Amino acid sequence: MNITKLSSFDVQLIQQKLNRNEENFDLIDATVKEVMIDVKQHGDAALKKYTEKFDGVKITSLKVQPEEIVAAFQTLDDEFLNVLQEAKQNITDFHEKQLEKSWFNDKNDGIILGQKVTPLERVGVYIPGGKATYPSTVLMTVIPAVVAGVKEIALVSPPDKDGKLHPYVLAAAKIAGVQEIYKVGGAQAIAALAFGTESMKPVDKIVGPGNIYVARAKKFVYGTVDIDMIAGPSEVCIIADNEQNPVFIAADLLSQAEHDEMAASILITTSFDLAVAVQKEVENQLAQLKRKEIARQSIDNYGHIFVVETLDQAYRVANLIAPEHLELLVTDPFLQLSKVKHAGAIFLGPYAPEPLGDYFAGPNHTLPTSGTARFSSPLGTYDFLKRSSVIYYSKEELKKVTDQVVRFANEERLQAHGNSLKVRFNREV
Amino acid sequence: MNITKLSSFDVQLIQQKLNRNEENFDLIDATVKEVMIDVKQHGDAALKKYTEKFDGVKITSLKVQPEEIVAAFQTLDDEFLNVLQEAKQNITDFHEKQLEKSWFNDKNDGIILGQKVTPLERVGVYIPGGKATYPSTVLMTVIPAVVAGVKEIALVSPPDKDGKLHPYVLAAAKIAGVQEIYKVGGAQAIAALAFGTESMKPVDKIVGPGNIYVARAKKFVYGTVDIDMIAGPSEVCIIADNEQNPVFIAADLLSQAEHDEMAASILITTSFDLAVAVQKEVENQLAQLKRKEIARQSIDNYGHIFVVETLDQAYRVANLIAPEHLELLVTDPFLQLSKVKHAGAIFLGPYAPEPLGDYFAGPNHTLPTSGTARFSSPLGTYDFLKRSSVIYYSKEELKKVTDQVVRFANEERLQAHGNSLKVRFNREV
Repeated sequence: MNITKLSSFDVQLIQQKLNRNEENFDLIDATVKEVMIDVKQHGDAALKKYTEKFDGVKITSLKVQPEEIVAAFQTLDDEFLNVLQEAKQNITDFHEKQLEKSWFNDKNDGIILGQKVTPLERVGVYIPGGKATYPSTVLMTVIPAVVAGVKEIALVSPPDKDGKLHPYVLAAAKIAGVQEIYKVGGAQAIAALAFGTESMKPVDKIVGPGNIYVARAKKFVYGTVDIDMIAGPSEVCIIADNEQNPVFIAADLLSQAEHDEMAASILITTSFDLAVAVQKEVENQLAQLKRKEIARQSIDNYGHIFVVETLDQAYRVANLIAPEHLELLVTDPFLQLSKVKHAGAIFLGPYAPEPLGDYFAGPNHTLPTSGTARFSSPLGTYDFLKRSSVIYYSKEELKKVTDQVVRFANEERLQAHGNSLKVRFNREV
Repeated sequence: MNITKLSSFDVQLIQQKLNRNEENFDLIDATVKEVMIDVKQHGDAALKKYTEKFDGVKITSLKVQPEEIVAAFQTLDDEFLNVLQEAKQNITDFHEKQLEKSWFNDKNDGIILGQKVTPLERVGVYIPGGKATYPSTVLMTVIPAVVAGVKEIALVSPPDKDGKLHPYVLAAAKIAGVQEIYKVGGAQAIAALAFGTESMKPVDKIVGPGNIYVARAKKFVYGTVDIDMIAGPSEVCIIADNEQNPVFIAADLLSQAEHDEMAASILITTSFDLAVAVQKEVENQLAQLKRKEIARQSIDNYGHIFVVETLDQAYRVANLIAPEHLELLVTDPFLQLSKVKHAGAIFLGPYAPEPLGDYFAGPNHTLPTSGTARFSSPLGTYDFLKRSSVIYYSKEELKKVTDQVVRFANEERLQAHGNSLKVRFNREV
């Protein structure tokens, strides 16, 4: 990892070191659009065609059958089943705190205003397939929907060469509360969820991570359905003072780097000595990793250490990055919370390493990436709820405000708007 | 308005009568993309070029100057100023109820989980221009941001042929709490807000209604920034039992129809007699409207009356429509609220006509259109807040869960994830 000493808050220099390049998606978008239109027109047949083309397998039935789920549970030992269930409990507990209530507000006598909160009816969850198996992502995307009260949850994931989904994905889906599972991935799965096919009913919202085709397909259907976010590569940013252990820091940086070649691991520290120690320790630990080729590329291209003069500077740099994960390895991390403006999840102190949040603590691991924490939130129960305003006025109260509403409507040249009040009081329209 | 008797819940028939066509946006998208790239590359010069091309005016300075705002206030009489200020108060009161608090949750001894709520830093508000003047939209889009605590609010709106914005838009912007106003509209304004130019700093989120170019431009930049929604034509749906006054209903339907030719006005009633009376009354009132050409087209193409056998059927039809505005003109409307699953705003009883909500009551008038109330909410204070998860574990608590987290990480083949816990307890990695 390279080290840069920042003597001032040099935005351009920081951004250059972050190496966050904007990509051109024109070619990908063209492919995605073709797939979307094909699925819209040809339904299941198109899904099967693309599954053969992209996943290399001919499937006869898209829907996972009950016996496949039974078989999946037979591959689970009690210990891992227990881990999944305890994780489920922690995730459920946290997301229940995010539930919103409908509320009403009596105002004067004869005016009631309020907000009715209703769960979405039907949701689609995308789970990546291929070489990776992410039962944690199943729990993290499905449980908030269940907590919100969504009745129908359909999960999609690309099948392997044998036409199967990984048993842990199936088991986690069942444990989390999914009713329907389909063996289809990529842009074609997103199209099926958005538009529906013979065997898949369309959904109201699509959530869950995926590759760049999935991400662009989600953007394509945004508006027809809602989506959670357009996820980019994963990233961790660690702020550390000179009291911290470089072994911990290196391990946390590498836990991010092993995700994929595009993942970013950033350390911001007030201590040059710590920076050097972490640099060395990253090399030591990296050499031992099974996924060292991936971690190597990630660290070389997107890993960086910034040495700053004060902790306040460290927070400024972190806020500029707006990282997905932010670890505060500082004395009294709670007192620093107000300095953090933009981050997906904030991990406090030396015993809250980021992977604790990935699997187990309870808060969601689906987080805003690539600086989008400036304007978006972790996936949450609120993603599966929607609000309706509620307005009641009595005749007397409406009468009191009629002149004002009519005046406002007149100024906007919307006469019929004013009329709708006037006719109620026999005024000339 | 045509009347259809529904003897069963015939989804296809209902949708055919609704006449909600899917449009092809390919040509518009191509223009939008060209504008976006041009603004990204050429900044202010591109903004001025497109303003001349699309708005027919050469502007020298994009930013509205303080003296223009002073002049705007001189055009306001006290009565209208009062109306604006009272509307502001009502909107502020309602949106303050939507504020969210940060929260923490002590769990066991040594675990703290929480959610930190932070306002967005910088927001862009689009206000349509042209022949229409919508100070109400200024209040409705800006006030929630102010209530949320957004510090920087930049408003954009296309100038008229004299290079000016309407004084009421300027005054409303000042009253609501906008700091910066720019004379630029269309897709070019959205590009400037998303990417920034020499004279405009980029924002984190863009809200506000616009024409189809603005809507598609918002979709284009979604991901780079957040957006509120992709708005379609406005719509009202009225459920009425046989006790209701056809004069009120006709007025409310027409208040929607005068908006634009694409606006939809739908009545669902259990009474055929009422349907016929409304049909007649719509014709009577329509003939008197200044905007009768617009209302005529809207009513003819998108207006419809459904006669159903029971109120329960009426709610099913309304939920299928998922209307932007829903009026419940029924006995005991409160008791019916639980039957409404999808609606942007719900107006209860005969004295809560939809225009009351457009201007004055307090809830937002920026609402999900075209059935998107299935998955989205009115614009609200929550649109300008974002959440960060907060995780703290003590050494002892982390130790207790280490085996479980490591097991989970191993199952996902993410060894370095497990290592980040192991190194903290000197376990072999």
